[in-house]
Amino acid sequence: MNNACEIGILGGGSWATAISKIISDNCLNFHWYMRRIEQIEEFKALKHNPFYLPNVKFDIERISFHSNINEVVEKCDILFFVVPSPFLKQHLQTLYLPLKGKFIVSAIKGIVPDENILVSDFFIKNYDVSVDSIAMLGGPCHAEEVSLERLSYITVGCDNEEYGQRLAKLFTTNYVKVIVSKDISGIGYVSTLKNVYAIAAGICQGLKYGDNFRAVLISNSMMELEHFVKIVSPMSRNLYDSAYLGDLLVTAYSRFSRNQLFGIMIGKGYSIVAAQMGMGMVAEGYFGVKCIKEINNTYRVDMPILDAVYSVLYEKKPVRSVVQKLSRILG
Amino acid sequence: MNNACEIGILGGGSWATAISKIISDNCLNFHWYMRRIEQIEEFKALKHNPFYLPNVKFDIERISFHSNINEVVEKCDILFFVVPSPFLKQHLQTLYLPLKGKFIVSAIKGIVPDENILVSDFFIKNYDVSVDSIAMLGGPCHAEEVSLERLSYITVGCDNEEYGQRLAKLFTTNYVKVIVSKDISGIGYVSTLKNVYAIAAGICQGLKYGDNFRAVLISNSMMELEHFVKIVSPMSRNLYDSAYLGDLLVTAYSRFSRNQLFGIMIGKGYSIVAAQMGMGMVAEGYFGVKCIKEINNTYRVDMPILDAVYSVLYEKKPVRSVVQKLSRILG
Repeated sequence: MNNACEIGILGGGSWATAISKIISDNCLNFHWYMRRIEQIEEFKALKHNPFYLPNVKFDIERISFHSNINEVVEKCDILFFVVPSPFLKQHLQTLYLPLKGKFIVSAIKGIVPDENILVSDFFIKNYDVSVDSIAMLGGPCHAEEVSLERLSYITVGCDNEEYGQRLAKLFTTNYVKVIVSKDISGIGYVSTLKNVYAIAAGICQGLKYGDNFRAVLISNSMMELEHFVKIVSPMSRNLYDSAYLGDLLVTAYSRFSRNQLFGIMIGKGYSIVAAQMGMGMVAEGYFGVKCIKEINNTYRVDMPILDAVYSVLYEKKPVRSVVQKLSRILG
Repeated sequence: MNNACEIGILGGGSWATAISKIISDNCLNFHWYMRRIEQIEEFKALKHNPFYLPNVKFDIERISFHSNINEVVEKCDILFFVVPSPFLKQHLQTLYLPLKGKFIVSAIKGIVPDENILVSDFFIKNYDVSVDSIAMLGGPCHAEEVSLERLSYITVGCDNEEYGQRLAKLFTTNYVKVIVSKDISGIGYVSTLKNVYAIAAGICQGLKYGDNFRAVLISNSMMELEHFVKIVSPMSRNLYDSAYLGDLLVTAYSRFSRNQLFGIMIGKGYSIVAAQMGMGMVAEGYFGVKCIKEINNTYRVDMPILDAVYSVLYEKKPVRSVVQKLSRILG
């Protein structure tokens, strides 16, 4: 990573758009890959993303758009992967250039479905990227609030202190504060788990449980998260840091949370397909709960909340009785 | 405390009404003290508290009302004190009977203003109540949700295991789950601190900060709370338990939180008097922040959020610049 490096954003969703907004505030030019050529054409005509955060206007003269992932990989030194985790492998199918030597920043929430490994480990294992050349972004950071320039905090997890600081500089604006951490895998696991617990919170809301119960649920989620992360990725970390507790809170409490909304619809009795269609966006926690459940088959951490969400979404257990049973063991 | 003991509730507010509802679901008869005779008369006529939770109907034949605190103290073995902490001493001014030998349950949030000691210590010190005969109630438990019979969790802090279990039995209903703990003072301090942090969260909301920032603020509040409680009341406790993190969450996130509402009005620029009048209820955190600030003059724990709230409410510092300064040191 040198000072004159070229930056590429990969992904056309709301979080990719928010990250591009931050980058465009700090860099004169950057590259942006989104698969659909029509989205690019419409973007150029409108000067904003036609589908997400339309309030964010871009100076499109400063952006090089690409619908071919190889172009952006060829031209850039730093690559921000910002696609939903279930679609990552699909995007990479058309990539024939190596990623070795590139600096990879994952703004993807956590774990690669089916592979059941962290996004960072996925790049290391399958693309020969060195652990030194990878960073993971953590919240709490809803894209919608970044687009409104409401003060937000991003944690950059990076094993290389110097690169971490450089990324921090790239991201710091008057509405974004950056914290640098070495805990790539903790941030990765928590960013998946928080979506699972946000679905749980949504389910309880959909079932008309109140704020008192939600507070109990989230407290117990933190206990469960602590047990899991301690076992799966042991290191000294303070889970009150905003990348952990803060990210869980913003996801489980904010009205912008799509995972929570997905849970609300499930709690109200909608089918999974209807809930997904009703939202028009991917609730990553739906995939995340399966990943963690399968990972936990090895570790056997006691995770009653995760198990409850899994049994509702994947074993078609009746949602009301699952939550009633859960409520008896929370404390 | 024996099985056939007489129970008295002291206080006429919403939390006292919610507790009376729970008690009335488990006990045939109980005593209820509220100072104003007119409130009692109206209560009897309407069969509900005329000022709070009017949806909760009582069988008034089963309640002995008293406007004289001595009557209820004389007749009862277990006394539930449920008045706002700033009014406790005022209520006790007319008491000439001893409290020694009674079992005292404090449902008062935390600390006695001016005295700057925990409510439990206040009764021990000034009324010769033994530490064995005192319990402290912790949340997360908004009265409004108890009134709606939405599943809620109460933590009973009691040094005496057996008494704690008996109280748990007295409180357990199909909508209230009880957890027993020995941490009287931890629950006491947290129940004060959470109101302070709820005011802070409200202030930021009033200033139009968003959900991302609120999540950072609450995460940092947990760190601050941990540092303080560790120093002031060292013992082994898990702050993810619902009486700690859960109580903070429900107070800082729920729309029923009066402390948050008070903060919102301060953030919007209302004066303290206007905010208090506009609410028509006491925001206990206003008094709590002063108590903790003064207690912390001895301990000198680094508490930037507490200091920020204090400086806005008591030193008339400009709210916007105080929060801007605070935001630069949060992480």
